[in-house]
Amino acid sequence: MLALSLFAFAALADPLPGRATVAEILEAAPEEVWVAPDLEDTLYLDLDAGRVVIVLVPELAPAHAAQIRTLAREGYYEGLSFYRVVQGFVAQGGDEAGTKDIGAAEPALPAEFETPLPESVTFTPLGQADPYSPQAGFIEGLPAARDPEAGTAWLAHCTGAFAFGREEGRDTASTEIYIALQPQRYLDRNLTVVGRVVLGMEHVQAMPRGALNNSGTIAEKERWTPIRGLTVASDLPEEARMPVEIMDTSSETFGQLTRARAARPSGFFYSRPDHVDLCQMPVPVRLAP
Amino acid sequence: MLALSLFAFAALADPLPGRATVAEILEAAPEEVWVAPDLEDTLYLDLDAGRVVIVLVPELAPAHAAQIRTLAREGYYEGLSFYRVVQGFVAQGGDEAGTKDIGAAEPALPAEFETPLPESVTFTPLGQADPYSPQAGFIEGLPAARDPEAGTAWLAHCTGAFAFGREEGRDTASTEIYIALQPQRYLDRNLTVVGRVVLGMEHVQAMPRGALNNSGTIAEKERWTPIRGLTVASDLPEEARMPVEIMDTSSETFGQLTRARAARPSGFFYSRPDHVDLCQMPVPVRLAP
Repeated sequence: MLALSLFAFAALADPLPGRATVAEILEAAPEEVWVAPDLEDTLYLDLDAGRVVIVLVPELAPAHAAQIRTLAREGYYEGLSFYRVVQGFVAQGGDEAGTKDIGAAEPALPAEFETPLPESVTFTPLGQADPYSPQAGFIEGLPAARDPEAGTAWLAHCTGAFAFGREEGRDTASTEIYIALQPQRYLDRNLTVVGRVVLGMEHVQAMPRGALNNSGTIAEKERWTPIRGLTVASDLPEEARMPVEIMDTSSETFGQLTRARAARPSGFFYSRPDHVDLCQMPVPVRLAP
Repeated sequence: MLALSLFAFAALADPLPGRATVAEILEAAPEEVWVAPDLEDTLYLDLDAGRVVIVLVPELAPAHAAQIRTLAREGYYEGLSFYRVVQGFVAQGGDEAGTKDIGAAEPALPAEFETPLPESVTFTPLGQADPYSPQAGFIEGLPAARDPEAGTAWLAHCTGAFAFGREEGRDTASTEIYIALQPQRYLDRNLTVVGRVVLGMEHVQAMPRGALNNSGTIAEKERWTPIRGLTVASDLPEEARMPVEIMDTSSETFGQLTRARAARPSGFFYSRPDHVDLCQMPVPVRLAP
């Protein structure tokens, strides 16, 4: 059998002596590195294909976090669709017609492209140069970046970034949401990212796309992906919630993981990268045992 | 209506004067920048969801290119499946049981992780620093990298990279193939990339995944994605081929595009990245008009 064994250990290349591999670090991770995100900051996006779990970092985009909770609790997205899904770019959902009542939500939000980082929030540097920001790292399990001089931070447009669309003006976001299908770091600080898909991204990747080279609305409505629900986890009874836990990105275990992803000490690797890109550093997620 | 207008032109930010935007450059592209890849280097991977078009660069991995053509022409992959599909990582296909006769194909190929670049092949530098290689760029429409000192080049593990799996040893690839679902640059020069998906990547992204945190074979066979066919385009009559054309990455138009993706002169952008990552630089593809 010739299976692809990317995680193989018995290897013919020379392993780096005394360096734990990614798999070994995960195996040895203590229980306390697994953190359940706040239920008020957890959204369930229900599609026919399954549930997509989104985690918010409200400290970085308080107005947008409040808005998405308001809209979720009004049932605003139920019956709407992801109607603009562009291969390799983003999946955008909301009210294509622009006629649905937004209730108590804001018709236009102040941009929160970058935000002063409160002291209560930990930014853990990745420890690698980042061509898109002064410093790349992680905030509460999500890829992020910051400008240490300005004291601001923002969530990065890595795959799964959950953000608000806008019109041309800065302060025009309201109800349109999108999820990045691939890293799109050039959008950082140009739109407000408020969270990230941490589970069920395969259901987003499976959405039907528009025609080749059409970056707008999918012409055939039957190819739109209906939104069955968008719910704040805290509004559901415990038995209806998903026990998602994310690795604490400020933990020593995660630091070891980032170093192992860069060094690739396992004997499978003949050429070691000595680098890990922010969007190529997976944050481990599990369902509580 | 509050549509996400990422490609908007009428804008409130200050556009960079005298700089064409991505959309303007595409609009003005002369016909001769569109190149049809050699039919002998074009593969059709047929799935129930649709056709996936793969382009090979045989100059960078001659033994692997010859092998995939041999296997395709033997009908080796028909009836096999993508049986290991890991969210955010790769989709791997081939013979999970390892029992199917490989016919005239090689049971073990010499590694072609990087290859001396022949003079007949043009490497066009991206013109941006690349943390994973001495120099990033493009070869025949595909993202690639090179080591100018060693004179070698290789195709990069950007999304859609089409490569051969292997066992632990360097020279052990034979029939197992995989497609990158996300950029995985740390795999560069550790496995042999022989081409890239240029059309139909959404069908690959739609493949059912294995269980969370299982990086191996999908346990439920009914979730495997059957391979209906893998065909060399030159073996089909003209009317059965897809008239794929890729932008010539050595053209002045593509050079303009890479600079515009880095500078983002359109007024939509409040924060200009001044950088474009190799795997975040789309190469335009079209079906011949």
